[in-house]
Amino acid sequence: MTVSAPLIEKIAFLGIGLIGSSLARAIRRGNLASHISVTSRTQKSLDTATELGFADSTSLDVKEVVKDADVVIICSHLSTYTDLAERMAPALKPGAIVTDVGSVKGSVIKMLQPLLPDGVHLVPGHPVSGTEFSGPESGFAELFDGRWCILTPPPGEDQGAIDTIRALWEGAGSMVEIMEPAHHDRVLAMTSHLPHAIAYTIVGTATDLETHTREEVIKFSAGGFRDFTRIAASNPVFWRDVFLNNREAVLEILQRFNEDLTALQRAIRWGEADTLEQMFTRTQEIRRGVIEAKQDEYLEPDEAKN
Amino acid sequence: MTVSAPLIEKIAFLGIGLIGSSLARAIRRGNLASHISVTSRTQKSLDTATELGFADSTSLDVKEVVKDADVVIICSHLSTYTDLAERMAPALKPGAIVTDVGSVKGSVIKMLQPLLPDGVHLVPGHPVSGTEFSGPESGFAELFDGRWCILTPPPGEDQGAIDTIRALWEGAGSMVEIMEPAHHDRVLAMTSHLPHAIAYTIVGTATDLETHTREEVIKFSAGGFRDFTRIAASNPVFWRDVFLNNREAVLEILQRFNEDLTALQRAIRWGEADTLEQMFTRTQEIRRGVIEAKQDEYLEPDEAKN
Repeated sequence: MTVSAPLIEKIAFLGIGLIGSSLARAIRRGNLASHISVTSRTQKSLDTATELGFADSTSLDVKEVVKDADVVIICSHLSTYTDLAERMAPALKPGAIVTDVGSVKGSVIKMLQPLLPDGVHLVPGHPVSGTEFSGPESGFAELFDGRWCILTPPPGEDQGAIDTIRALWEGAGSMVEIMEPAHHDRVLAMTSHLPHAIAYTIVGTATDLETHTREEVIKFSAGGFRDFTRIAASNPVFWRDVFLNNREAVLEILQRFNEDLTALQRAIRWGEADTLEQMFTRTQEIRRGVIEAKQDEYLEPDEAKN
Repeated sequence: MTVSAPLIEKIAFLGIGLIGSSLARAIRRGNLASHISVTSRTQKSLDTATELGFADSTSLDVKEVVKDADVVIICSHLSTYTDLAERMAPALKPGAIVTDVGSVKGSVIKMLQPLLPDGVHLVPGHPVSGTEFSGPESGFAELFDGRWCILTPPPGEDQGAIDTIRALWEGAGSMVEIMEPAHHDRVLAMTSHLPHAIAYTIVGTATDLETHTREEVIKFSAGGFRDFTRIAASNPVFWRDVFLNNREAVLEILQRFNEDLTALQRAIRWGEADTLEQMFTRTQEIRRGVIEAKQDEYLEPDEAKN
């Protein structure tokens, strides 16, 4: 009986939250690696990973986990990268590929590149999917199916290393796109970082209302507000790190948003009916694009109501 | 064989879009009225209402439709109210109850009250539910099940009239709350009008990006942006009218939001990690409230992923 060998002999996970545990599950599903080793900040997460069946070995010692690994994937908050890179560097084997799942890419390259030994490859990645839930028990193998994963290898990176990480994500169900790191950070500032900044702010505005009104805001949240509360339920440390690491692109897009909001405010104040209608009509083109790009998972249940 | 008489003998719908047609379907489901008459701006909508089986009679003539009606419900855009009231007033029977489903209540009372004949009751209402779809074919009988409907009768309104409209919405599956009109407009400015203003603005900001980046924003919209595109896909004329009719409350809450956004912007600019983390943590309390209030229809599918 001939069984084709898995893509990767040993893969090491540094961190095993929603994204890490989902990828580990997808790797199991696709038989993409012979051995999955896992480290985490807490023994509790390691025990959960073992119980849930997607870790072959675990250790609180980063060096132990990355030893002999062909691929090392950082699945923890951006603020942990420098420390993790310093700790794992001496134990990385020559030819190993370091990758990650962080939501910002320029700063990841700046943090990791100087700390990795010669002969170790760096292929940063960002799967564009997720839920508002955290922790290893929140993951599921289907999280990446049909979603994009963006890879941002630094200029001149080894093509074989890029191909391996591409094959890993494709094996996990993703579509893969290669992008320049700074461009990734500008696009994601618009699609993800600005929406989260806005959602956190609007829910914060509601938090500051007098108690009686706040209770009614919760009661009548079906009018649109509840969608924002879901976005603003994401992990605070994760988002703190995103904004600290993508400051320039986020501030630039926030500035544009502010200008547009001022224009809307002015149109409301002066009762400019035609301007308002035009503002609310021009946004429909992008909605059609999103639907055509099949990036709206809620489309089918909503449309089923018709 | 004894069958209890329906709550209402004849109900007249002025407008038959998403909300009107959903209520008509719910009235059929609950046998809440003996006769449903419908008028609309176009014969096409009337034909659709007849084909879909929730209209007993239709006419483009408002007077014809409201004649003999015990309840008249305005289910069209706020900008049509004055014209509709002027046209129907001479044909309303003494004791008739006029109600509506508009998203702003203070201005509705200001528009309708002076135009209605003595002996006609006014019990404005607002079902807090909806989808981003429009038109009579988009409705469904279950739209109001388990959702709130807010009634805002003017001071001194007849209790019997209030009770009838309450029974109508409860029969359609809603929970009913009585509220002071100005208070309704402040609460909804926060839960619904501000979120829509923000969603339209953020999608507008994306619309203005260079073509190449805009295409990628659509492609990678799964990161949070797509939720805003869904909210910003709502009917432009509907929202134009909401902002024109609830100007003061919306501008007041927009001002608060702006202050909070400036604080966030400042924390990002100065790299204030603790402030950011605190800002993103305090919003979780409201999210818990929304979940406990069971106003999140997406809760179950999301949690099922765990």
